[in-house]
Amino acid sequence: MRSMPGRLDAPRPPREEAGMNSATDTVAAILADPRFKAAVATLEREHDRTVEDIIRLTEIPAPPFKEERRAAAYLDMLRAHGLEEVEQDAVGNVMGRRRGSGNGSTVVVAAHLDTVFPEGTDVRVRREGTKLFAPGVGDDTRSLAVNLAFVRALDAAGIRTRADLLILGDVGEEGLGDLRGVRHFFTEGRHRDQVDAFFTVDSPEVDRIVTGGIGSKRYRIGFHGPGGHSFAAFGLVNPAYAMARAALALAGLAAPEAPRTTHCVSVLGGGTSVNAIPNAVWMEVDLRSQSAEELARLEAEFLRAVEAAAAEENAARSTREGPVTVEVAPIGDRPAGHTPVEAPIVQLATAAVAAHGYTPRQEYSSTDANIPMSLGIPAVKIGSGGRGGRAHSLEEWIDVEPGESLRGMSASLATILAVAGIAD
Amino acid sequence: MRSMPGRLDAPRPPREEAGMNSATDTVAAILADPRFKAAVATLEREHDRTVEDIIRLTEIPAPPFKEERRAAAYLDMLRAHGLEEVEQDAVGNVMGRRRGSGNGSTVVVAAHLDTVFPEGTDVRVRREGTKLFAPGVGDDTRSLAVNLAFVRALDAAGIRTRADLLILGDVGEEGLGDLRGVRHFFTEGRHRDQVDAFFTVDSPEVDRIVTGGIGSKRYRIGFHGPGGHSFAAFGLVNPAYAMARAALALAGLAAPEAPRTTHCVSVLGGGTSVNAIPNAVWMEVDLRSQSAEELARLEAEFLRAVEAAAAEENAARSTREGPVTVEVAPIGDRPAGHTPVEAPIVQLATAAVAAHGYTPRQEYSSTDANIPMSLGIPAVKIGSGGRGGRAHSLEEWIDVEPGESLRGMSASLATILAVAGIAD
Repeated sequence: MRSMPGRLDAPRPPREEAGMNSATDTVAAILADPRFKAAVATLEREHDRTVEDIIRLTEIPAPPFKEERRAAAYLDMLRAHGLEEVEQDAVGNVMGRRRGSGNGSTVVVAAHLDTVFPEGTDVRVRREGTKLFAPGVGDDTRSLAVNLAFVRALDAAGIRTRADLLILGDVGEEGLGDLRGVRHFFTEGRHRDQVDAFFTVDSPEVDRIVTGGIGSKRYRIGFHGPGGHSFAAFGLVNPAYAMARAALALAGLAAPEAPRTTHCVSVLGGGTSVNAIPNAVWMEVDLRSQSAEELARLEAEFLRAVEAAAAEENAARSTREGPVTVEVAPIGDRPAGHTPVEAPIVQLATAAVAAHGYTPRQEYSSTDANIPMSLGIPAVKIGSGGRGGRAHSLEEWIDVEPGESLRGMSASLATILAVAGIAD
Repeated sequence: MRSMPGRLDAPRPPREEAGMNSATDTVAAILADPRFKAAVATLEREHDRTVEDIIRLTEIPAPPFKEERRAAAYLDMLRAHGLEEVEQDAVGNVMGRRRGSGNGSTVVVAAHLDTVFPEGTDVRVRREGTKLFAPGVGDDTRSLAVNLAFVRALDAAGIRTRADLLILGDVGEEGLGDLRGVRHFFTEGRHRDQVDAFFTVDSPEVDRIVTGGIGSKRYRIGFHGPGGHSFAAFGLVNPAYAMARAALALAGLAAPEAPRTTHCVSVLGGGTSVNAIPNAVWMEVDLRSQSAEELARLEAEFLRAVEAAAAEENAARSTREGPVTVEVAPIGDRPAGHTPVEAPIVQLATAAVAAHGYTPRQEYSSTDANIPMSLGIPAVKIGSGGRGGRAHSLEEWIDVEPGESLRGMSASLATILAVAGIAD
C-alpha cells in the first residue's frame, strides 16, 4: 500500500463515523473555499467551450488499437493548457503535468481515449436541444474534455494543489484493449513508481463510485483434430465435440454470488464445409470475479476442464488419424483489486458526491482503475457529470444541460482537490 | 420402377449367372461390332481435340451457383456437335438430343458443370507431360468433354442408337448445390417423365461403378437467446450451451455400419463479443445413410435432440429475459436410393468394365445419380477414363495419356451403347 500525500497521510481515524466526518469536513471546507467557488464559476462560464471540446474530440475516431489521431489532438490540447512535460509514451498514452506545491507526490486524473466502435463508424455528433448523440460521446470522450476544463478552472481560480496533477489520456481501456494503456503506465511507464492516487474519470454518472475492480481472464481456446470427410472418415475424433464438452463443463463450474464470480462462453466458430469433420474449432470465454482468489480458482478449474474435454473426446472416438489437441491463448487479463471502503480516496469521493445532493453508490466494475487497485495504489472511478445513456451502442448520448452537468463536474473537481490537497 | 427400352425390356433372367452371361454377351457383341471399333478409332484419332476441350472448359470458372459462363460455352458446343433441341432450362442445365431409331425412349448421359471451387480460384491448366493440373479438371470437366467425344465418335462411325441419347451438362452437383440441376431435371424439367436410364459420367475412374446413392440431410441449426452482459447478466440462458448439448447428443446417436450411416457437426459459429452472452449461435450438421429409412430415423432423433437441448438449457439457467429458442433450416437434402445389382444397367456397366480388363467395383456414393435412383429410374455413375487424383483440392490432376484414357472411354461408351441399344 502506498502512502498518500498530505492529509491522506493522516493516521486512519479509529471509527468509521470519525472517518466519514473527517472526509465530510474536508469536502465542506473545499466547497466553502472562495477559490473553489471561483473554479466552479469558470466551469460554468466556459461550459460552451467544454461542450465544443467534447464534440471536437468525439468526431475524431478512436477505434480499439487506433487511437493515434485522437491522441495527437489531445496532446496538442494538453500543451495548449500550459501543462508541463507534455508527452506521449511508447503505447500511445498522452499526458501532461500540472505542478503542485512541491511535496513530490502525484495524483493521476485519467480518461480513456479509445471507444468500442470499429473503424468506419459514423462518429458525427447530432445535437437535439442539450443532448448530444454519437458513439463514444459519453464513454469516455466527455471526460477527456472535462479534465481539461478542470485545468482551466484551477488556473483561472489560482488554485495550486499540493500534489502534482498528471492529466492522462490513455489508450486501450475497452474490450480487447485489455487496459493496455494504464497497464503500461503502471508497469513500464516512467511515472510508475510516483503515483500516490489514481482517478479515472469515466462516463457521466458521478453517483456511481467504482471502488472495486472486477478481475477478468479471457481465453480463446482452440481445439484441433485430424479432420476428414464426414462420411468416409466417420468415427474419427471431432474437435467440435471436445469443445461442446468444455463449454458444458464451464457452464457447470461453481460461481459464488459473493464475491461475485461469473463465466461465459461468448464467441465461437470453426469448421470449413458441411461435409467435413472440422480440423479446428475455437471458443472465447470470459471469466470474472470481484476476488483475485476466486478468479484464480475458476481459471484453474476451467483449464483443467478443457484438457479433460479433449481427453474424453479422444477416448470416445478414433484417434487413428490423430487426436484432438488443445491450444490455450490468453486474450484478456484484467486484474481484480479494490480500494478499501475506509481508504481516504473512497471516503472523500463519497463525501463530495453526497455533498452535491447525490446518493453515492460504491460499486465494482472493470475500469482503468483495476490496474492501480491490483497494485495497492488508491484508485477510484469518478464521473464527468451530466446524464447519459446507451454507452457501447450507436445510439449513445449525453445531456450537457448546464445545471446537472456543472453539479456533477463540481463534485468530481472537489473530490480531486480533496485528495490532491489545496496549497495555502 | 420404370421399364427399360429395347433389350432392357427383356424379362429378368432367372439366375444371376444368366444375367451376367447375358450382359457379358451383349457387351462382347458390341465390342466385336466393326461400327464400335470405328467409334473407338475416332476417339483415338480425336484424342488431342478432346484434351483441348477439357482444357478449354476447365479454364472457364464454374463456381457453385455460378456456372453460367461454362454453361453458355457448353451450350454452343452441344449445338456445334449437331445435337437437336439444344436448350438451357430454368435452373441453368444445358442439353441436346441425339436422336435414336425412334422407339421413343431416352437415355441421359450427364456430366456436371459446377466445381467446388469459389470465384477467383486460379483455374488455369498446368501441363506436365500427359498430366493436366487444375481445380475441377477431373471432377467433372473431363467428363463434359468426353461426352462430346462420344457424340463425335458415334457420328463418325454411323452408329444410331435405339434410344435417344440426351447429353446433359447439369448445374449444382457439388456441396450446397445439393444436386439442384438434376433434381430440377427430374421434378420440373420437360423431360422428367421420359427418361428410361440415367448415366452420370463423373470423374475418371471407370472401375468404380456407383450403384447406390448415399442420402444426406443437412441442417443449419440456430440457437437464439436474450443475450446480455457476461458479468451483469450472468445466470441467463446461453444458447452456446444449448448448442453444445445438441452437438453431444448427435455425437451419441446410433449409426449402424450397415446400412452405413453417419453424422457430423461440421461448421459452427456465433456470438459477437467476448464480454457478452451470445444472442445467437449456429451449427451445420451432415446426416447420411445408404438407407432412406435409417436416414429418416437419424433425422427425427437429431431434431428431437435439438429441441431437448434447448429445453434443458432453459431448465438449467434463468429465462427471465427470454428462453433459448431453436431455428431449424434445412440446407441440403440428397435422397438415398440404389439401382439393384441385378438391374440390366448395373450388369451391363459391370460387364463392359470387366471386358476392358478392369476389376469392377459397385459402390455407394453421393452423385447426380441419387435423384433418379430415389425415383426408381435405373441409374449409375460411370467414369470418363484415364487416371486422376486430389479432387476437391487445388492440386487436382488428371492423366490424359492416350492408352489408359481410351481404354476407360471405350468401357463407358460400350456401357452406354449396351443400355441404349444399337439400331440395326
